[in-house]
Amino acid sequence: MIYDAIIVGRGPAGLSCSIYTVRGNLKTLVIGKKDSMLLKADKIENYYGFEYPVSGKELLETGVKQAQRLGAEVVEDEVVSIDKTDVFEVVCVNGRYRAKTVLLATGAPVVKAPVKNLERFEGSGVSYCTTCDGFFYRNKKAGVLGYTDFAVHEAMELMAFTGDITLYTNGMPLKISDSHRDSLSRLKISDKKIKELDGQDKIEWIVFEDGSRDSVDGLFVAYGSASSASFALRMGIAMEGKSIKVNDKMETNIPGLFAAGDCTGVFKQVSVAVGQGAIASRQMIEFVRKMK
Amino acid sequence: MIYDAIIVGRGPAGLSCSIYTVRGNLKTLVIGKKDSMLLKADKIENYYGFEYPVSGKELLETGVKQAQRLGAEVVEDEVVSIDKTDVFEVVCVNGRYRAKTVLLATGAPVVKAPVKNLERFEGSGVSYCTTCDGFFYRNKKAGVLGYTDFAVHEAMELMAFTGDITLYTNGMPLKISDSHRDSLSRLKISDKKIKELDGQDKIEWIVFEDGSRDSVDGLFVAYGSASSASFALRMGIAMEGKSIKVNDKMETNIPGLFAAGDCTGVFKQVSVAVGQGAIASRQMIEFVRKMK
Repeated sequence: MIYDAIIVGRGPAGLSCSIYTVRGNLKTLVIGKKDSMLLKADKIENYYGFEYPVSGKELLETGVKQAQRLGAEVVEDEVVSIDKTDVFEVVCVNGRYRAKTVLLATGAPVVKAPVKNLERFEGSGVSYCTTCDGFFYRNKKAGVLGYTDFAVHEAMELMAFTGDITLYTNGMPLKISDSHRDSLSRLKISDKKIKELDGQDKIEWIVFEDGSRDSVDGLFVAYGSASSASFALRMGIAMEGKSIKVNDKMETNIPGLFAAGDCTGVFKQVSVAVGQGAIASRQMIEFVRKMK
Repeated sequence: MIYDAIIVGRGPAGLSCSIYTVRGNLKTLVIGKKDSMLLKADKIENYYGFEYPVSGKELLETGVKQAQRLGAEVVEDEVVSIDKTDVFEVVCVNGRYRAKTVLLATGAPVVKAPVKNLERFEGSGVSYCTTCDGFFYRNKKAGVLGYTDFAVHEAMELMAFTGDITLYTNGMPLKISDSHRDSLSRLKISDKKIKELDGQDKIEWIVFEDGSRDSVDGLFVAYGSASSASFALRMGIAMEGKSIKVNDKMETNIPGLFAAGDCTGVFKQVSVAVGQGAIASRQMIEFVRKMK
């Protein structure tokens, strides 16, 4: 089964888009975790149409109900990778879906992993893309920096190249779904807090706060959730700084792939996200019609 | 008294903008009639945040209350002209206001006057701008096509050039506010239905359905409400077809003048209008700050 539209993210941009795509007769799936930045907003009073402030939580929940009522499928899951062959393959922690068009509405870029010297070694052993750089670590000692399903997914991707993989959680408790528990047994796990990364021209050591150190050949960053930036790297999506580059139709440089909301780095407001979602939907409907 | 922001139009684009400008500490005035296209929408179900459909009327009324609660002044009036000197002068039927920035959010371009051959004589005696072309009809026989305050306002502008002015209502009943009643006595009024305009190279005759005809040297069109296009002509705002040309910050070609919503001719949706209003507000706040 192939969806006409898969929407990654269940905030205002994603759901606004889904409302339009279902009404435009596209079979639409919305995938996202309940982790919108909006959950932190107690009172939203600058979104047109509400006389009194509404909470982010309320707005998010109403939006999901609205989209579902109109016919969108909404699943709670985390997208860990997106690939494009003839159609898009959207890989989640608990499932895998195919679609003719994809909207990235993943919200603001995720905050960087709080590890000293990470930036210094970017491109010198520190990578954000297993698909791009995994090959360089064939039979070498690779680390993955992270503690979530996304990190385990990345580690499993690396398994194609090397069996010597350590998951560095930087002291964070593991947050892994049942479906990934088995994979964990194939990895070494270090849950010590990291003091800094060290090395000469490239990363050589992970130095812990307790004074001990591990040697590594490379470190893949998959800290927290997969962000727009991780999809971008993997798929070759053009970026503008940390934001996905879109034109005024919300098209990315990849045909069939669109983006809306905070991940496009505009004025980060519900109003703007909702408008962009609507604009993207129109192009997605057009794109699917032309494929038929 | 000078407002920081005057917003022309009280639909979603205008009110969304006003919500942001007042919260950004701009003294904000919203001017508009209760004539939004949305009033015709019984059920809106594609605006994010409402589980069940909401009527256009309800959305409009809630929006006004929301903007007022946050501190925007909202007046019901019709803007008939906007001029720019050191600041903007916004002339209404019942008042006159000054502002540092103006947002045009006047909705979709108004439908053309239903008169045969109107287009044929555009630029050949048929004009949409008394300020631009009034001078050419010094002491000549001028007609104004219209039946509202806007038409009377245009006729009064022409008074500077000629005393021979007829208001052609095309069979429409006059809709004139009390404040313009006095002006009417200075005009001839023809309320016959027009069959067509006639002439050789330029307009010469207004031909009525009853077979009679009036000779004219020029005819100024001010049919219905003043639209974005009429402001544009007068002020030299760049257009793109019938829409106001804006960049991605909602700036027009005139510094301090912004536009949002249907008058910019994008995907005509509440969602999009609301997003554009928010984007415009940010630039308006910036503009006012720089003036100080």
